[in-house]
Amino acid sequence: MIKNILLLMLLAVSAAGKAQQKRPNIILFLVDDLGWQDTSVPFWEETTPQNRKFHTPAMERLAKEGVKFTNAYATPVCTPTRVSLLTGMNVTAHYITNWTSPLKDNPTDAADKQFLPPHWNYNGLSPVAGVPHTVHATTFPQLLKEAGYYTIHAGKGHWASNGTPGSNPLNLGFLINITGNGAGSPQSYLGSDNYGNLPGKARWQAVPGLNEYYGSDTFLTEALTLEALKALEEPVSRKQPFFLNMSHYAVHDPFMPDKRFFQKYLDKGLDSLEAAYATLVEGMDKSLGDIMQFLKAKKIEHNTIILFMSDNGGLSNPGYRSGTSYIQNAPLRSGKGSVYEGGIREPMIVKWPGITKAGAAVKQYIIVEDFFPTILEMAGVKKYKTLQHVDGRSFVPVLKNISFTDNQRVLVWHSPNKWVQEDGPGINYFSAIRQGDWKLVYSMRSGTAQLFNIKNDIGENTDLSAANPQKTKELLNLLGMRLKNKKAPMPVDAATGMPLPYPAQ
Amino acid sequence: MIKNILLLMLLAVSAAGKAQQKRPNIILFLVDDLGWQDTSVPFWEETTPQNRKFHTPAMERLAKEGVKFTNAYATPVCTPTRVSLLTGMNVTAHYITNWTSPLKDNPTDAADKQFLPPHWNYNGLSPVAGVPHTVHATTFPQLLKEAGYYTIHAGKGHWASNGTPGSNPLNLGFLINITGNGAGSPQSYLGSDNYGNLPGKARWQAVPGLNEYYGSDTFLTEALTLEALKALEEPVSRKQPFFLNMSHYAVHDPFMPDKRFFQKYLDKGLDSLEAAYATLVEGMDKSLGDIMQFLKAKKIEHNTIILFMSDNGGLSNPGYRSGTSYIQNAPLRSGKGSVYEGGIREPMIVKWPGITKAGAAVKQYIIVEDFFPTILEMAGVKKYKTLQHVDGRSFVPVLKNISFTDNQRVLVWHSPNKWVQEDGPGINYFSAIRQGDWKLVYSMRSGTAQLFNIKNDIGENTDLSAANPQKTKELLNLLGMRLKNKKAPMPVDAATGMPLPYPAQ
Repeated sequence: MIKNILLLMLLAVSAAGKAQQKRPNIILFLVDDLGWQDTSVPFWEETTPQNRKFHTPAMERLAKEGVKFTNAYATPVCTPTRVSLLTGMNVTAHYITNWTSPLKDNPTDAADKQFLPPHWNYNGLSPVAGVPHTVHATTFPQLLKEAGYYTIHAGKGHWASNGTPGSNPLNLGFLINITGNGAGSPQSYLGSDNYGNLPGKARWQAVPGLNEYYGSDTFLTEALTLEALKALEEPVSRKQPFFLNMSHYAVHDPFMPDKRFFQKYLDKGLDSLEAAYATLVEGMDKSLGDIMQFLKAKKIEHNTIILFMSDNGGLSNPGYRSGTSYIQNAPLRSGKGSVYEGGIREPMIVKWPGITKAGAAVKQYIIVEDFFPTILEMAGVKKYKTLQHVDGRSFVPVLKNISFTDNQRVLVWHSPNKWVQEDGPGINYFSAIRQGDWKLVYSMRSGTAQLFNIKNDIGENTDLSAANPQKTKELLNLLGMRLKNKKAPMPVDAATGMPLPYPAQ
Repeated sequence: MIKNILLLMLLAVSAAGKAQQKRPNIILFLVDDLGWQDTSVPFWEETTPQNRKFHTPAMERLAKEGVKFTNAYATPVCTPTRVSLLTGMNVTAHYITNWTSPLKDNPTDAADKQFLPPHWNYNGLSPVAGVPHTVHATTFPQLLKEAGYYTIHAGKGHWASNGTPGSNPLNLGFLINITGNGAGSPQSYLGSDNYGNLPGKARWQAVPGLNEYYGSDTFLTEALTLEALKALEEPVSRKQPFFLNMSHYAVHDPFMPDKRFFQKYLDKGLDSLEAAYATLVEGMDKSLGDIMQFLKAKKIEHNTIILFMSDNGGLSNPGYRSGTSYIQNAPLRSGKGSVYEGGIREPMIVKWPGITKAGAAVKQYIIVEDFFPTILEMAGVKKYKTLQHVDGRSFVPVLKNISFTDNQRVLVWHSPNKWVQEDGPGINYFSAIRQGDWKLVYSMRSGTAQLFNIKNDIGENTDLSAANPQKTKELLNLLGMRLKNKKAPMPVDAATGMPLPYPAQ
């Protein structure tokens, strides 16, 4: 009898221990500006010349061990994506429709003759109420932390402008912050430049907190990885589940060569600019590999979920990459800043040991705000309160059944700002909507819409609006209603001083 | 029988829980450059005009609730003190005999005609072997962390130069680092200056990581306090014992007024420079009060030890404070940088609830490396291994018995560097030794010694060496032996290129 009771108690203790261990660790590996084709993993139905240009063996391994999403979306630029991810809100709801300045109260809109800037939240995300021009929302790292997760942010933050609480990741639910602040790019990737921290030369983009590596040949991507792994020692050693937001500055410009990989790409025949870009990609991939190796060495590989994602399409504007502009994400059209696929479709991979089917591909379209409910579901956080309505939907059902299909779901993109001085394809003052294989692209400047069948025409080359007026009208109407329901910001007509009307309303 | 077993098990569980809770939290409140008299708490036998100048109600409260040490010592400048504290090593053992530059491989010695710099560890403390010009040692925060403490560093680091691992507090045993790096002072105390992080104007001293407060009127001391309390939420919420290294930049120069307190001191008749200095002091004191209030609000006051200390004497060189130089620490002689009492005697208070006798004063002399074994003993960390020999001695016996007396103990100070261009009293190329009430001050420049009876002559005004040749010889010999045994660095004779011989050897 006593024996039985003791046994029961032991079993109970053991079960409790096991249950605690069972909560998975979660790593979100978020890359900056990585285009859909900037990897040796083919996300399209065929391997492209771009795929052959890059060398990303860790991504290949992750794709083999997990599932790749071939229709994963973000927003066209970074802050909107990052805020959608952290809050589960669509861009039409959080009103952070463009990137936020490192300096608060400083809208980043380029000047325009036709339009004045929309009334958007140019100070970004705020964890506290009453900060002007911010969205006040609950973040999932905060909910994870409250549920007992050890939450680490490493790398680029860029959720809000400096001078506001949201610029400090420690206010957004992270226990540990490595370098994150209001800046959206690094002044320098080089340890020999102190990552920009040079007396008299430091700008807003100087990367803080890596003083240990000053004057060394440690590339920024490597330094962040080392610091992230250092921070992981604590939760791993006491078996506390962790969430790591591994948020690389790479592959954002400045395109500085990572010397560890540079010669290889020069030897391959790339010019020095493209070779430099390729080294940023491979350095990022090495970080992924190092993290996967760390998980293996710590014997927590089997209980750690990895989500790989990029925040927007690859940069394709004139003056940055070599060759013709806007073709860097081919077969997709345009690039960063655009609502065409090149600006929003992302290389995404998810490995959930025991759940995802190794090497599979998921065709269901998802969007970046879906990470919010997904990650919480993965962590077993079921009942939670948020200040905001969560627009995202968990893609756990998709992970559990890769043939899961929902062609009725509506996705919306909305960029009522002038991101760059020179308009490009789908760049500056555009919205878009996708439902099933249909996608409509709306230009606020001209008030016109294009219709594409994304499945048949991934390059968005053939405008079907004239041939399908009914579908065009239907989607345009739906887009207008969505924007109106969310009271999404619209550009202001310079002539009248009034915001543009919503399309078809 | 079953009941008994269950009861025993419950008792065991409960005892374990209680034992865990019982490990005290420890806060080291370390102020920078705070002189012995820069407080309304009198550390001498009488209240001085200096005491009446400053307003430090939180220190008064802490002194009432804890014990004050009237013979507590540090080294004359910051890095040596900070390394002694973290490693338990005397300055003669760690060879970091002067402050370290924010830039590695950059000795901070001023030029001199008579001497070349000694061979000292000008890159500071290192947690890893093989870093040139560093001391490789085990830190007590590392041992606390390994023993299960949640270790937080907030504020000034300055243990090692940037570009070396020791410049990152995360490598020195801290789980959390708030602003600490290789710099020894803040570029600006003002949020409106972004603490120095102004594009094109930032210097090595720009304070990293406080971007949330950029453009605000949050004084640096306040921002650090807010961030430290934020970091404390985590261990407090899960009842993990913590160690907080609350290491203020205040009251180091630049002497910028903290507007919250400025008018009060102007009204008191202080000139604007002295009033500014007094606001740095009061801002620091407010931080102490806020932390004490936090402990009370969290109901952990009864189980939290507070150790208050400064890292060296008050700055008294020409060109910084108002009035005559070298009298700012009166009745003590000289100030920061000096081996006279004004450079090394510190305002120190310890409150250990349930142990220290409220409002008592301890006369036993102690030195900053004593904090190492003391804090480990307080935390119940008994068996530990260190790379270095620990020179410090635990002052727990003194805390338990305030009349504890050891007049045989020998303390040594050693400054073989040229700290500032202009020699001052006890400043540049001096050593000192204390045993009981006797103190000998040795000038390397002149090769001469002075002897003082510290008890009768706290101002070190009367040189007794001629009257007491035997005592002088004895202490000089002891000093020389101590230096020789530790192979302490000595200045190099510019004429011969050879290090000076140790005194009396």
